[in-house]
Amino acid sequence: MRTQVAIIGGGPAGLLLGQLLHRQGIDTILLEKRSKAHVLSRIRAGLLERGTCDLLHEAGVGARLAAEGFRHQGVNVSWGEEMFRIDLAGLTGHAVTVYGQTEVTQDLYDAREATDAPSFFEVDEVTIHDADTDAPRVTFTHDDAPQEIACDFVAGCDGFHGVSRPTIPDDVRRDYEKVYPFGWLGILSETPPVEEELIYASGPHGFALCSMRNEGLSRYYVQCDASESPDAWSDDAFWAELRRRLPPAQADALVTGPSIEKSIAPLRSYVCEPMRWGRLFLCGDAAHIVPPTGAKGLNTAAGDVHYLAEGVTAHYRGDDGPLDAYSERALARVWKNERFSWWFTSLMHLFPHHSDFERNMQRAEVALLRESEAAQRAMAENYVGLPL
Amino acid sequence: MRTQVAIIGGGPAGLLLGQLLHRQGIDTILLEKRSKAHVLSRIRAGLLERGTCDLLHEAGVGARLAAEGFRHQGVNVSWGEEMFRIDLAGLTGHAVTVYGQTEVTQDLYDAREATDAPSFFEVDEVTIHDADTDAPRVTFTHDDAPQEIACDFVAGCDGFHGVSRPTIPDDVRRDYEKVYPFGWLGILSETPPVEEELIYASGPHGFALCSMRNEGLSRYYVQCDASESPDAWSDDAFWAELRRRLPPAQADALVTGPSIEKSIAPLRSYVCEPMRWGRLFLCGDAAHIVPPTGAKGLNTAAGDVHYLAEGVTAHYRGDDGPLDAYSERALARVWKNERFSWWFTSLMHLFPHHSDFERNMQRAEVALLRESEAAQRAMAENYVGLPL
Repeated sequence: MRTQVAIIGGGPAGLLLGQLLHRQGIDTILLEKRSKAHVLSRIRAGLLERGTCDLLHEAGVGARLAAEGFRHQGVNVSWGEEMFRIDLAGLTGHAVTVYGQTEVTQDLYDAREATDAPSFFEVDEVTIHDADTDAPRVTFTHDDAPQEIACDFVAGCDGFHGVSRPTIPDDVRRDYEKVYPFGWLGILSETPPVEEELIYASGPHGFALCSMRNEGLSRYYVQCDASESPDAWSDDAFWAELRRRLPPAQADALVTGPSIEKSIAPLRSYVCEPMRWGRLFLCGDAAHIVPPTGAKGLNTAAGDVHYLAEGVTAHYRGDDGPLDAYSERALARVWKNERFSWWFTSLMHLFPHHSDFERNMQRAEVALLRESEAAQRAMAENYVGLPL
Repeated sequence: MRTQVAIIGGGPAGLLLGQLLHRQGIDTILLEKRSKAHVLSRIRAGLLERGTCDLLHEAGVGARLAAEGFRHQGVNVSWGEEMFRIDLAGLTGHAVTVYGQTEVTQDLYDAREATDAPSFFEVDEVTIHDADTDAPRVTFTHDDAPQEIACDFVAGCDGFHGVSRPTIPDDVRRDYEKVYPFGWLGILSETPPVEEELIYASGPHGFALCSMRNEGLSRYYVQCDASESPDAWSDDAFWAELRRRLPPAQADALVTGPSIEKSIAPLRSYVCEPMRWGRLFLCGDAAHIVPPTGAKGLNTAAGDVHYLAEGVTAHYRGDDGPLDAYSERALARVWKNERFSWWFTSLMHLFPHHSDFERNMQRAEVALLRESEAAQRAMAENYVGLPL
């Protein structure tokens, strides 16, 4: 087989790249290790920056997002019993959109399937060859048969555990990492959200987040020990823990019900430099991970995809400038989102090694955020998304 | 002897309190362990917030400050080779004033000596008695003779190592502390400052600060190991180290000369709660220490003094409300200044335990400060001083 861009990974980054390139008349083949049903069953964040929404529209998959997404003009922050709202729209002129990553992925699959761009699922032994030459290849097995794709470029969109990043030799690659001493226990429940907008809550018992998918589907998280098992948490235990981390009015108003999904995710910050090696380009989780506080994961990936689509498109029009600048452009934005996610995580969680002085620094910084419009604006600018 | 307020400590906090109370017709006696010459020889920070300047004017000691102080409308921040200016005046409508703490102290002594308020220097064995009753006393020796002051209130302005704070029983007092793994090596030299405004510089070799007293007197600092001795640093070694921490243009422009003072200060954050016990009130370093980054030490002390002078004045007019609220009011501001000093210190120094990821978080946050007007405003609001 031959294509212009071999896309490794059928999550939202790879799919979005495929659609943006398709709109420019550029061919792609997409490889995904798991089944499509598996990819679509993955529960992930559901908060889209305006820039991400713009890209989805540009990719031609914005119709359902526009109809079903919920625009949030603000976000709530609480510390102990006190809660305040950050007026995102008033401070920045922009809002964020609640629309599940699962829905984004579904829309992108629907769009891809309406084209003749090939996708292979449940592929195995994916290997990238000759990425540092002008003729890269990708080999894999599908239905136990060996396959090979000759291509111009390889887009590594296969996540943190994928094969793309390790293809970059160790002596070229530099890794930056921070592992946080806690995880998030999250549940999905068919209950009305406790507030119309999200609540990021911190207090003596740790962090909690109240999020949602729609009026009847809530997503809640509590900071937990990363080594715990979700099975050790009954629904009742979860609701009790969530309640004691919310301000009194929200704790009272919380509607509980059976969880329909329950899982624990570790929190990690990670960046790989560079994001390009020869004709291999990394996008999204393959190159960087953020802790989920502030929901920058998918949005950072969307930024990468935007820069890569621009670069590849310019290449086929005879200009290699944007493609050569890919790693630098993407990383400039990645580090900003890493900083925001690290800052927001550091601000709101209970750290086991923190002294009382350090806990008071968190308290004082939340107080600054409550009182200073400038501090709120600096936060809001990052929360709604920095310009691409 | 009898007075209304016994002031322990003849540094700027105690002296300013004495003058503010004197203007309200309230009597004080001031005790200082060292000689006046010793107090006046102490080199300290020289950056005054507008609120501190206002208080000095209110205390009747603003004439020389107005004539000789330098108003700085901006401050420079550099990271490696890049430097940018934060337009304090444009962002906040306010400036800061460069005027040495030694000068403030001199002006306050001149003012105190123009009154009949007694001051005792080189006192020994200062002891606070019965602070938790309506009749506190202070005993001490002066010229080897035992002395006693009966008073209504005791103001503990005797610094971190003074006797006032330990007078508060351990089971009442709570301490918060952070010791930073470095110190500041500072020199004073009769050379023109490298820039008209201050430079806070960070880079691969650590932090440096370019400050000044006037057009012909510069104050420079470099981050160093807190365990080092200033004697181990020749002037040449200091200048070489400073130069490699500045942006190229400033390193080139730096005028060097012999140091006329050289010392190393450790960096520490410390807060004592509460700041009141019975009729004993702590002010300034007796209750809290900030690292010098951002020069909040004297300015935070001035805030305490303002609240205490208001409280004592209101008491003699029959209203104990402000005095009862003293600890809470002072601490609310103290924690904000602690946060700012901790944040600015954490942002700009090289921490021996930092990973490359954490170093990149500093870099990304400095970049945010360079690019975001909102981030600059949030910084500037704190730098020029939060309202009293």
